[in-house]
Amino acid sequence: MEPNTRAPWREKLHTIIFEADTRAGQWFDIGLLVAILLSVGAICLETVPSIEKEYGPTLVLIEWVCTILFTIEYVLRLVSVRRPWKYALSFYGIIDLISFLPSYIAPWFGSAKSFAVVRAFRLLRVFRIMKLFHMTRESEVLATAVWRARSKIVVFLTVVLITVTIAGTAMYEVERIGSAEVTSQFTSIPQSIYWAVVTMTTVGYGDVVPKTALGKLVSALVILIGYSLIIVPTGFVSAELVDAKRTQNVSNQTCPYCMAEGHLKDATYCRRCGKPL
Amino acid sequence: MEPNTRAPWREKLHTIIFEADTRAGQWFDIGLLVAILLSVGAICLETVPSIEKEYGPTLVLIEWVCTILFTIEYVLRLVSVRRPWKYALSFYGIIDLISFLPSYIAPWFGSAKSFAVVRAFRLLRVFRIMKLFHMTRESEVLATAVWRARSKIVVFLTVVLITVTIAGTAMYEVERIGSAEVTSQFTSIPQSIYWAVVTMTTVGYGDVVPKTALGKLVSALVILIGYSLIIVPTGFVSAELVDAKRTQNVSNQTCPYCMAEGHLKDATYCRRCGKPL
Amino acid sequence: MEPNTRAPWREKLHTIIFEADTRAGQWFDIGLLVAILLSVGAICLETVPSIEKEYGPTLVLIEWVCTILFTIEYVLRLVSVRRPWKYALSFYGIIDLISFLPSYIAPWFGSAKSFAVVRAFRLLRVFRIMKLFHMTRESEVLATAVWRARSKIVVFLTVVLITVTIAGTAMYEVERIGSAEVTSQFTSIPQSIYWAVVTMTTVGYGDVVPKTALGKLVSALVILIGYSLIIVPTGFVSAELVDAKRTQNVSNQTCPYCMAEGHLKDATYCRRCGKPL
Amino acid sequence: MEPNTRAPWREKLHTIIFEADTRAGQWFDIGLLVAILLSVGAICLETVPSIEKEYGPTLVLIEWVCTILFTIEYVLRLVSVRRPWKYALSFYGIIDLISFLPSYIAPWFGSAKSFAVVRAFRLLRVFRIMKLFHMTRESEVLATAVWRARSKIVVFLTVVLITVTIAGTAMYEVERIGSAEVTSQFTSIPQSIYWAVVTMTTVGYGDVVPKTALGKLVSALVILIGYSLIIVPTGFVSAELVDAKRTQNVSNQTCPYCMAEGHLKDATYCRRCGKPL
Repeated sequence: MEPNTRAPWREKLHTIIFEADTRAGQWFDIGLLVAILLSVGAICLETVPSIEKEYGPTLVLIEWVCTILFTIEYVLRLVSVRRPWKYALSFYGIIDLISFLPSYIAPWFGSAKSFAVVRAFRLLRVFRIMKLFHMTRESEVLATAVWRARSKIVVFLTVVLITVTIAGTAMYEVERIGSAEVTSQFTSIPQSIYWAVVTMTTVGYGDVVPKTALGKLVSALVILIGYSLIIVPTGFVSAELVDAKRTQNVSNQTCPYCMAEGHLKDATYCRRCGKPL
Repeated sequence: MEPNTRAPWREKLHTIIFEADTRAGQWFDIGLLVAILLSVGAICLETVPSIEKEYGPTLVLIEWVCTILFTIEYVLRLVSVRRPWKYALSFYGIIDLISFLPSYIAPWFGSAKSFAVVRAFRLLRVFRIMKLFHMTRESEVLATAVWRARSKIVVFLTVVLITVTIAGTAMYEVERIGSAEVTSQFTSIPQSIYWAVVTMTTVGYGDVVPKTALGKLVSALVILIGYSLIIVPTGFVSAELVDAKRTQNVSNQTCPYCMAEGHLKDATYCRRCGKPL
Repeated sequence: MEPNTRAPWREKLHTIIFEADTRAGQWFDIGLLVAILLSVGAICLETVPSIEKEYGPTLVLIEWVCTILFTIEYVLRLVSVRRPWKYALSFYGIIDLISFLPSYIAPWFGSAKSFAVVRAFRLLRVFRIMKLFHMTRESEVLATAVWRARSKIVVFLTVVLITVTIAGTAMYEVERIGSAEVTSQFTSIPQSIYWAVVTMTTVGYGDVVPKTALGKLVSALVILIGYSLIIVPTGFVSAELVDAKRTQNVSNQTCPYCMAEGHLKDATYCRRCGKPL
Repeated sequence: MEPNTRAPWREKLHTIIFEADTRAGQWFDIGLLVAILLSVGAICLETVPSIEKEYGPTLVLIEWVCTILFTIEYVLRLVSVRRPWKYALSFYGIIDLISFLPSYIAPWFGSAKSFAVVRAFRLLRVFRIMKLFHMTRESEVLATAVWRARSKIVVFLTVVLITVTIAGTAMYEVERIGSAEVTSQFTSIPQSIYWAVVTMTTVGYGDVVPKTALGKLVSALVILIGYSLIIVPTGFVSAELVDAKRTQNVSNQTCPYCMAEGHLKDATYCRRCGKPL
């Protein structure tokens, strides 16, 4: 299909569905947002026995109406887009597909409530609607800060996983030694590692706790070590965001002679070619 | 009412009630602070059965004395202010009104203890008294830092709400699979979302915990993902406050001779070319 | 007592007890540190029934030896110091006094184990010994950062206390409404405020948790609001410490002409009098 | 052994085992990573009764295969290295040794499952393999930031330990006073210190909680104090990382003409006077 020979209604459809700068496009996005929230709300409430008993049919109806709307929307997106396959295989294309497909398949697997997780993924489509609220730039600053700190986060997570395993194993042994009188809740090393994750992240459910004196001592040490460890990632993101703020001090002037960029705001000469800015 | 024809006692009343730079105004604010704290303390203690039994009438008396004082104060504020309606409909005007109104209405609704929440809102009036302690500037710096980070916080909360919903749904499904032997505490998706909020914010009550091995594994993953996620907002506010601090010490003066910027606020000569600023 | 007529042994004693730059002074500090830790350890272990049964007399002996040592030390400090009263009424003077006095008084009040808290305060003396490890400068940077953020912290604590009271009152009312079937753990408003503090600081014991659906919803909201609120103080201290680091960029040069200080490290002219540095 | 007379196969072996820039060296590292993770996984799963029952022999086999591989690897490292003793006594040399030695010794001590902690230490070898993923620089930045904040962290931990002891002792006394009706969970001061650590780090298991009204009040105060205290270390690392970032982009070049400093690293002309740097 040649770009210039596309039917005008397709162009218009594309603008409504994919952009948010026309009145129609904005209404489309708001409608979509409502449909997503309604359908996810229905999925959630369906699992509450008392609500399901009373409003069950209504919730099923909402779910089906939204499913059909999402199906129509998906077909319209496929039609209006220039390269349907590229869209279908893109991140949002797949999210769009699994936001209605499981509802058709679920009844064949016994229960209409199946695939709740997969169906909840349709919430990810909300991110696309964010452009409506001029939030795109904010999201980008955040995403960039997290992305630039990614290799530090990987190193950090490796450190955490190793610490958690060693701490879990240590507690398993320690609690076994003193558990002649009391029953240890550290029944296995995986259970102890679960405890270590819950403890070091300061979640602290309390479903697995040390019962012996030695176990409590080791536990207090693990908490303090873990605490010192876990404060580190906050530093990363802070540093990245502070840096992002400071680079706002770099002007967006371009040297008229050598086209160099990235000058400090108070620079009077090009730092590249030495000519006045 | 013409501005210049206002009675002098009204001007004086206005100064005492709304300002804190006269001796009388300061005493008024201190008295108000004491009355607010006393009355809120009375409301709280009234709900403790053992205290209510012994000091019940005293607490009711305190509450009624404060209510009448607040009523008189409200009338005085209405009288002393230039535009009574504007004040009555302002944020503090409404707070002032609901700090005594519910006490009069409550008895009609059966119990004198009703509307405790609404009555607790009178605590917000404490913020107005802060000007007494020269805290206004501090509050403003804080409020500005939070305000400037607002759209980042909205984006962040959206991400959190979506993550929490998907994580909750996932745990609901995971715990159902393995709950043949043990009774799952993830009885519905809303309950699971409650668990996800409690877990990802590292509150971790422990009233809802995974019982199955797979549930514990997914739980540990959710904790680690949630942890990485939740550290982000600290970064925002840090970055904003660091920025607020930096721009504080540097003036926006430019040297008229060499155009250098970034001088300290107390500089009188250019730090670059030595000419007077 | 004239400054120049003090006995030399007093001067020497003063150097040993109050300074850490002589060999004898260092040994004195190390001995003191050991005595403090030993005696606090003894106080703690005395309360464990099984240890008390077996090692009781030994622990009492350690406590008494340390008490006598602290008494002698206190007398020596009084003797060696120029103005005994000024020392006796200073912060460390009082701490030194209450580190041995309660041990003499306790037996008169029935139990030798009384005043455990007061006796634990002797741990504060450890801070004085820090100068031994060249930690004084670090302590000061920290203390300064916290001190400079003090009024922000006061504002923040006020906000927290008000939020906690309103959130606690709200939960008390909400849980009462739905507690027809289940017994609410929010028995009174003070109990609910305790819950709000435990929840908003993400401690989350789990001894008081919402039982009703509405309670869980409000609880999740309170957690999210509280979480957004509580991240703020981290920002303060970060900002202060970042600022402390940056001001290391200010040179300690003094203008030879006007004695002005606080020039940026890259300044070539005095920002005060314009003469070259 | 003279450096120049080493056999070429030894040089090659050294390159494969200790470096990651040849194809063979990369495969060696990946193989090692797989063996470490497999063997630690086996150790963990062996302690789960249901898994041990079914796959016990397989897990023992995996453990033994990995042990023999680690033994061979250790011998090869000893052979390929120039100074075997220096390697054997280095940090990684010891880690390498204890990654297989306990497996040979354990059966003599009754159970093959003994020394699980010691064996889990082999996970630390993962850090060596990090060079494979170009993570070394990131680790160094992190390690440097933590290292530079070390004396602040020591001061902080001292403050925490002292606060935790005093808070624990206080709660022990407070809960004893009011525990006429209810049984206090603060059975001894060490138990109370364990509570204080769990509380102040916001872990909050909930296995030890105050039962009396006064205990809850003191607890809320301890939480708020502890919270204000514990936010400090985040500030350290943030400040260090922010500083590390800032000094990265600015060169320490000085303009030879106007002495201006603080040029960006890629500047070739002075941003102040326009002369070449």
